[in-house]
Amino acid sequence: MLRTHTCGELDIRDVGKEVTLCGWVGRRRDHGKLIFIDLRDRYGLIQIVFLPTESPQAYQLAQDLRNEFVVRITGKVEKRPEGTLNPKLSTGEIEVRAKELEILNSSLTPPFEIEENIEVSEEMRLKYRYLDLRRKKVLDNFLLRHKLYKTINTFLIQEGFIFCETPILTRSTPEGARDYLVPSRLNPGKFFALPQSPQLFKQLLMVSGIDKYYQIAKCFRDEDLRSDRQPEFTQLDIEMSFIEEQDIFSLSEKLMQVIFKEIKGIEIKIPFIRVRFQEAQDKYNTDKPDLRKELNSDFAFAWIVEFPLFKYNEEEKRWESEHHPFTAPFQEDIELLEAYPQRVRARSYDLVLNGIEIGSGSIRIHQQSLQERIFKIIGLDKEDAYKRFGFLLDAFQFGAPPHGGIAFGLDRLLAILANEESIREIIAFPKTSIASCPLTGAPSEIEDRQLEELGIRVKKRKSARKTS
Amino acid sequence: MLRTHTCGELDIRDVGKEVTLCGWVGRRRDHGKLIFIDLRDRYGLIQIVFLPTESPQAYQLAQDLRNEFVVRITGKVEKRPEGTLNPKLSTGEIEVRAKELEILNSSLTPPFEIEENIEVSEEMRLKYRYLDLRRKKVLDNFLLRHKLYKTINTFLIQEGFIFCETPILTRSTPEGARDYLVPSRLNPGKFFALPQSPQLFKQLLMVSGIDKYYQIAKCFRDEDLRSDRQPEFTQLDIEMSFIEEQDIFSLSEKLMQVIFKEIKGIEIKIPFIRVRFQEAQDKYNTDKPDLRKELNSDFAFAWIVEFPLFKYNEEEKRWESEHHPFTAPFQEDIELLEAYPQRVRARSYDLVLNGIEIGSGSIRIHQQSLQERIFKIIGLDKEDAYKRFGFLLDAFQFGAPPHGGIAFGLDRLLAILANEESIREIIAFPKTSIASCPLTGAPSEIEDRQLEELGIRVKKRKSARKTS
Repeated sequence: MLRTHTCGELDIRDVGKEVTLCGWVGRRRDHGKLIFIDLRDRYGLIQIVFLPTESPQAYQLAQDLRNEFVVRITGKVEKRPEGTLNPKLSTGEIEVRAKELEILNSSLTPPFEIEENIEVSEEMRLKYRYLDLRRKKVLDNFLLRHKLYKTINTFLIQEGFIFCETPILTRSTPEGARDYLVPSRLNPGKFFALPQSPQLFKQLLMVSGIDKYYQIAKCFRDEDLRSDRQPEFTQLDIEMSFIEEQDIFSLSEKLMQVIFKEIKGIEIKIPFIRVRFQEAQDKYNTDKPDLRKELNSDFAFAWIVEFPLFKYNEEEKRWESEHHPFTAPFQEDIELLEAYPQRVRARSYDLVLNGIEIGSGSIRIHQQSLQERIFKIIGLDKEDAYKRFGFLLDAFQFGAPPHGGIAFGLDRLLAILANEESIREIIAFPKTSIASCPLTGAPSEIEDRQLEELGIRVKKRKSARKTS
Repeated sequence: MLRTHTCGELDIRDVGKEVTLCGWVGRRRDHGKLIFIDLRDRYGLIQIVFLPTESPQAYQLAQDLRNEFVVRITGKVEKRPEGTLNPKLSTGEIEVRAKELEILNSSLTPPFEIEENIEVSEEMRLKYRYLDLRRKKVLDNFLLRHKLYKTINTFLIQEGFIFCETPILTRSTPEGARDYLVPSRLNPGKFFALPQSPQLFKQLLMVSGIDKYYQIAKCFRDEDLRSDRQPEFTQLDIEMSFIEEQDIFSLSEKLMQVIFKEIKGIEIKIPFIRVRFQEAQDKYNTDKPDLRKELNSDFAFAWIVEFPLFKYNEEEKRWESEHHPFTAPFQEDIELLEAYPQRVRARSYDLVLNGIEIGSGSIRIHQQSLQERIFKIIGLDKEDAYKRFGFLLDAFQFGAPPHGGIAFGLDRLLAILANEESIREIIAFPKTSIASCPLTGAPSEIEDRQLEELGIRVKKRKSARKTS
């Protein structure tokens, strides 16, 4: 270790100790006979003072220090003189009188101030994200994710859930959005797809008997972006066997309670209210009502239930699934399936927080005969269904248990917890609205040799590079 | 919940209780006047008995049961008659006398027996992975990963490390192996690459002041496969600032100690021995010596240190980096850089366990002048270097701290912990040696519309599909 302490952990009780600290130079004030710097790391800020009488060498070298230089300082913790205390800092009663100074690295002048709270354009912030992340507010959002994951892992492990990893390189199975595709070099002309969610894999895991599955999973959708969308996003994915809606509700409510307690120090009331889809539409004209006023709460949770199983596609003159085709209908509505599809309610549910959908799930169909009736209604014949989801349908023939689950959008949840408008604020290295990364320059042009190996060509366009 | 208990948790103390159990039908024995089944879930196995005197309906229905049917049974826990106890089972002193039986799902005859320990081809096992995962040995390997992640998370969080997520859709930066590429629809002609490791991002995080980073990260390399390689694999990625080699060694040794204690119940001795690269070559003729005999231990760890910084590429008649070009040289060897590159030792290290490299890392260069000297020796001029790693070199100009790290191959470590030859045994849904998935059929052909949107074409080959 190059240091004995971090910059945030010393206080008045450490007076008299000799310490070695490492960090970045913040403000520097040269008072002629003495030089002050603020030394900063992610744990805090501490005042360092250089006196020619204490160490002429260190004092001399300190004159070269500029903002964001990286230094290592050895010195003694001293009480600050009366009248110079800073009550805003945990280290505000002390300073370190420097005996030794080593400049570990210099720095160019940063394109924006780290410690000032000035407005910087998002483009600039993302290009210099490594500097942006040195700012306390940005760092705090970032640490929030760590804390959230820790809370989720601890809670779900306690509840008996098993963390399972599912593949990122998988098969293209249309799930509503566009797939990101990966050409296979070893199988020319064929492509992997990045998963839009682990939906099919988690259902396979239920067939295999893992009755309580969870994963903090990266998901990928090639959509046009908005402030709450990213090409890749993170989902807390949960699935259980031998359960009913109530079990998913209880688990989710306890999970939210623990998260809000751990992260915000807030006790939220459970169970959450349930609003039928039709009631939400009639009363609020949306299926994502913001009930903060009504519930008189800063954080208003609601389950939206009894969604219709189907919606009518006017353009194609056919019924399609509202959620996904594996969603189970209400038992008592099954007899209505063919005659009155519009009246069939789905065993699906959304969790809405402050008008934002943060979770969504359903009880799934586990019996083949019912699944085939549903496919027929949405106009999928057996061959089509097999082409799209064949491996799951095969699996369901070998003793699929009753099961259901839910997935939470962790980026959206984090944005709410951090009180941020955009999910880009809580992702370490986000993409812009045209799905590019100003920091790395991704996506980028690649070498012809790479395309050659993959057996693909880029089509010539006015704006595209020629490859052949 | 459809059940009151799992199949593994009942024992003699529960005699007299009425319980509801769900699970899969294992062995069924029809003794005429009574029918026995073994009911199985991932927690265990319990004997169910159907008697016509107890419930004629349940007895009747039980005659239809076949292997792998999914059932729900309500009945009373009874002591087994003398002479019929099974000491091998935790439930071996009891049975459940069924009052109610519900068949939740039927099953086709599985292509291989779940409970018998018969040899099944790997192709078959992977195609029916959801059945393979019902087998105890396979499931156990799978649960091992869950336990390992839990142990790692708990330990590193305790040590003050922050879990950070880095992007999967990123920029192609040559790191030795071939990149998987993802065409960008919104940026025609440009490609994302899947990360070979989070190496560049973790170094950026050090620049941003996150001094203790970790991630359980998916990595991707488009290589020809062997038994210990997969197109995607999982790495425990660690990086720290303001540290030296000894800090990485101590942390890693403590981590391994905790893992082996938690997972295998074994106390391993730390510190691990250190073997200089040259000594390993001279004495064992490899840089991955298996020291089990020498150390007289089932698990023989060794640090391999003092690797050469450069190796000579005979074909191209030039020096190249042995590890990666950001690896720092020994301080006392810096003066040899240009004159005697072959004599310069790297501050890199491998952790070898039983002759297998399970971890690898280095102290990185954080100063630009030294970095430029290294680039020059390996024949990278400034322009080339910027083209490849420009964003990292830019970041290093704004106060990069001294830093270093290590990455562990968790699949290899798990294979050792599970005593398996192939890492495919400890991955839920692995790919075969030609990077395909027998279960999902990935990679697969895609629709012309998808290629059209991406602005790419598949080149015509004899074996490939025509697309235009």
